[in-house]
Amino acid sequence: MEESDIKLRDGRIIRGEAPLNLETPFEKLDSFITPTESFYVRTHFPIPSIDRDAWWLRIEGEVEKPFAINYEELLDLEWKTIPATLECAGNNRSFLEPKVKGVQWGLGAVGTAEWTGVPLSILLDRAGVKANASEIILEGADGGVLEDPKSPPGELRFARSIPVEKARRDVLLAYKMNGIDLPAEHGFPVRAIVPGWYAMASVKWLQRIIVADQPFTGYYQTIDYAYWERREAIAELTPLTKMQVKAQISKPSQDEIIPANSLVCVQGVAWTSDGKIAKVELSTDGASTWSEAKLLGEPKPNAWQLWEFNWQTPAAAGKQTLIARATDSFGRTQPSQRDRDHGNYMINHLLPIAVEVR
Amino acid sequence: MEESDIKLRDGRIIRGEAPLNLETPFEKLDSFITPTESFYVRTHFPIPSIDRDAWWLRIEGEVEKPFAINYEELLDLEWKTIPATLECAGNNRSFLEPKVKGVQWGLGAVGTAEWTGVPLSILLDRAGVKANASEIILEGADGGVLEDPKSPPGELRFARSIPVEKARRDVLLAYKMNGIDLPAEHGFPVRAIVPGWYAMASVKWLQRIIVADQPFTGYYQTIDYAYWERREAIAELTPLTKMQVKAQISKPSQDEIIPANSLVCVQGVAWTSDGKIAKVELSTDGASTWSEAKLLGEPKPNAWQLWEFNWQTPAAAGKQTLIARATDSFGRTQPSQRDRDHGNYMINHLLPIAVEVR
Repeated sequence: MEESDIKLRDGRIIRGEAPLNLETPFEKLDSFITPTESFYVRTHFPIPSIDRDAWWLRIEGEVEKPFAINYEELLDLEWKTIPATLECAGNNRSFLEPKVKGVQWGLGAVGTAEWTGVPLSILLDRAGVKANASEIILEGADGGVLEDPKSPPGELRFARSIPVEKARRDVLLAYKMNGIDLPAEHGFPVRAIVPGWYAMASVKWLQRIIVADQPFTGYYQTIDYAYWERREAIAELTPLTKMQVKAQISKPSQDEIIPANSLVCVQGVAWTSDGKIAKVELSTDGASTWSEAKLLGEPKPNAWQLWEFNWQTPAAAGKQTLIARATDSFGRTQPSQRDRDHGNYMINHLLPIAVEVR
Repeated sequence: MEESDIKLRDGRIIRGEAPLNLETPFEKLDSFITPTESFYVRTHFPIPSIDRDAWWLRIEGEVEKPFAINYEELLDLEWKTIPATLECAGNNRSFLEPKVKGVQWGLGAVGTAEWTGVPLSILLDRAGVKANASEIILEGADGGVLEDPKSPPGELRFARSIPVEKARRDVLLAYKMNGIDLPAEHGFPVRAIVPGWYAMASVKWLQRIIVADQPFTGYYQTIDYAYWERREAIAELTPLTKMQVKAQISKPSQDEIIPANSLVCVQGVAWTSDGKIAKVELSTDGASTWSEAKLLGEPKPNAWQLWEFNWQTPAAAGKQTLIARATDSFGRTQPSQRDRDHGNYMINHLLPIAVEVR
């Protein structure tokens, strides 16, 4: 995309206006925390306008004591603050060839914020989850009618599920983002934060929690936000869950002009779902040879890690290709080729950044 | 559709040539058994050409002793013959307004045959199904590449699953249809017959049986051949299973000219998934009043029942509407309006047949 084609809103790239989809300009990344005003925005419907004094969150389904809680009561509960990286499951989609449907994200549908909120386990304990429960469905207040002939007829609300075990372990009902009340575009008054999972699970504008005793098969769990997994040589439709290990280069940016015969600091971030980033490597020769980059700061669970690499640029002018590759503590690394079973999602194969040495 | 637009092959209406889809001319129905050469044909891919001497059926997955069996061995096993009605899950689709995607079936994507084959339970017992098994996946030899961007990339084979309990109860691996070897278009050498279920479950050209320990989510179980079921006010994608109770009028046919002031025998069939047909009613006044039709013959499990109604036609010439309505022994009856959650499938709302009295 030509620079001149890019439209910005509040410094973010407009990838869609109805519904609103804004991308962080990734080349501006310079800190562990993404400022709230730069954080990417992914919506599926108009942003709900919610009055916090009229808001209730209901907990129901396979529980002993269904109840509803309001905003004030929620803020009185035990809370914690965690950093967590959220990545849209379609991040990097614009790099796919051939082109596929969906928001054409570049590198910036990912960000890290500090989220403050109540552990979901506290509400589940209060409700008393029955022994037969297997999943927790999170329902947002955002909804509308989809054009997809495969969608349910009539009004649809955004909803997604997580296993009970994951819900108890580390899911947060967040009401603050980087120390301030959640902005409307990020899910005011309360959103889920599901650490390590693609962000479709971190349901915004949360209004209902349904404890279920069988796998949830709502639209955003099956027709959308799913991929094909091969079992017994048959492809099975599988809901997206964990983020795939990935490194991205923030500097230099695509097509940037770099001085020849200089020391250039290549910078970026890397993240995975669980475990931590074990190493980030950089190739300046089209994935023939790799050099280890320097990881910056201490690894934090469920959050990206900054890295840098001092690159001695060649003396001769010409095109150069930079490729970053992350490996995590479970030994998972990025594939060199796109896995087509992943459909429009889970894009973590090696992406070259082309620069021009002059 | 004008008569002149209808193309026939072997007396059946061509609804598609690649893949081949042929419909039974429903107004010709005059017996409990649909002759094999009139039986509707639904295919998703080119018809596999299978050499019976080279054919093997594998049973694998969650079993103690996976094995393969050939045609000769299968024919040596205990067998039985049952009548069963098969209905395509999209039967009657051409009546939907607005039009939806899919083969535009009229009334004739349904038929009844006598199927001869080996109870699936015999093969399952030989393999030794493990205690953790929950589903049986039936895989056909038919396959190819779909254009649907939601389909798995590359070659796909037709596959469908049924619960272990259903598989043990009454599923047949059929090699004869109405007393002769299965024709190629009906699944030669062996197809499943899953009584009471829409016919997508009665997998043709069977080549593999996989015992699984979790819900199967292949393409034809999720993206296709599924509908929306409301649970907790959320629509959940649910694989099609049982046929819905339905009566169809075979005579007179749409737009037929009927003599005024005469006794006309209205004929048809009615079927349901389990239980039996309790009654069929006919309305000649646009569903205001109903009269009970006469059920013919003894009810047989999983097969349709013929019925007739002697209609005293009015003395005055004009348009008349005939509507048939079936109720089964579980009290299930046909809805007056289309349930849009059923998508392109499970079409069993009341369908008027217009005739002209002259």
